[in-house]
Amino acid sequence: MKIVIIQVGKTKTEQLRQLEIEFHKRITPFAQIEVITLKDQGEADNEAGKKILRQKEATVIIDKIPKDSVVIALDERGKHFSSLEFARYIDQTKDNSDHICFIIGGVYGLDESVKDKAKVILSFSSFTFTHEMIRTLLIEQLYRAFTIIKGKKYHY
Amino acid sequence: MKIVIIQVGKTKTEQLRQLEIEFHKRITPFAQIEVITLKDQGEADNEAGKKILRQKEATVIIDKIPKDSVVIALDERGKHFSSLEFARYIDQTKDNSDHICFIIGGVYGLDESVKDKAKVILSFSSFTFTHEMIRTLLIEQLYRAFTIIKGKKYHY
Repeated sequence: MKIVIIQVGKTKTEQLRQLEIEFHKRITPFAQIEVITLKDQGEADNEAGKKILRQKEATVIIDKIPKDSVVIALDERGKHFSSLEFARYIDQTKDNSDHICFIIGGVYGLDESVKDKAKVILSFSSFTFTHEMIRTLLIEQLYRAFTIIKGKKYHY
Repeated sequence: MKIVIIQVGKTKTEQLRQLEIEFHKRITPFAQIEVITLKDQGEADNEAGKKILRQKEATVIIDKIPKDSVVIALDERGKHFSSLEFARYIDQTKDNSDHICFIIGGVYGLDESVKDKAKVILSFSSFTFTHEMIRTLLIEQLYRAFTIIKGKKYHY
């Protein structure tokens, strides 16, 4: 089983970038993980423009989803998990599929066509956070899930 | 109106500490904000020991809550807000009280006696995060709330 994270745009905030790298390292003993960072499609001033950018991003995202993936798309209006429920879900899923593929949209979120590919729409918070912060939250939570699955002490 | 954040233990993760400082700076034009960092009470191996530490912390926390505060305690089993709902809540509350006092517990969370003082128990996520990460999430969300209240562009 391999974990793939597809995300749009580089992490510009240096501190968040460092935290991502740190948690990435911590997960390595537990699981193979690949982060695919796609080019962001620019900025728009109005809803119609944002929708077009989301759709452009969607085409590239969908193209990158590995075959035989369980797709989990992140969206604030998705399902809430506790850390224990999330760990159990990862544990069950990893035995039944080649890839677990998490998708984090860009500045304007994810297009419906991406969400349609997802088995689960996962919400980290009912609050809106920057897509950069969500990346750190996801990778920290994956690390936490593996410490739960493997019965290791969470250490930070 | 002044915002007071009471938290237990220094932020040890350098990147999170820097992010806290950054958002603190960004809030300053919108609101007076004070962060009170209390000494953590150490570590415990079992539930009984953790409870004693939470109770010790509670005594110190309660002593620091300013008079005439609306107290908001952070706990993962609390109420979920959207960013817009949170902004509206802050906006209404700031006109009716001298202080809004947020309380973030230490490694083992908050004692019931602290939660009893709270008008709102606020959850940032159904996932468990480190208390250090929650601090960054809170201060980012306060900054976001003020950009919503003041109609400013959220810029990061």
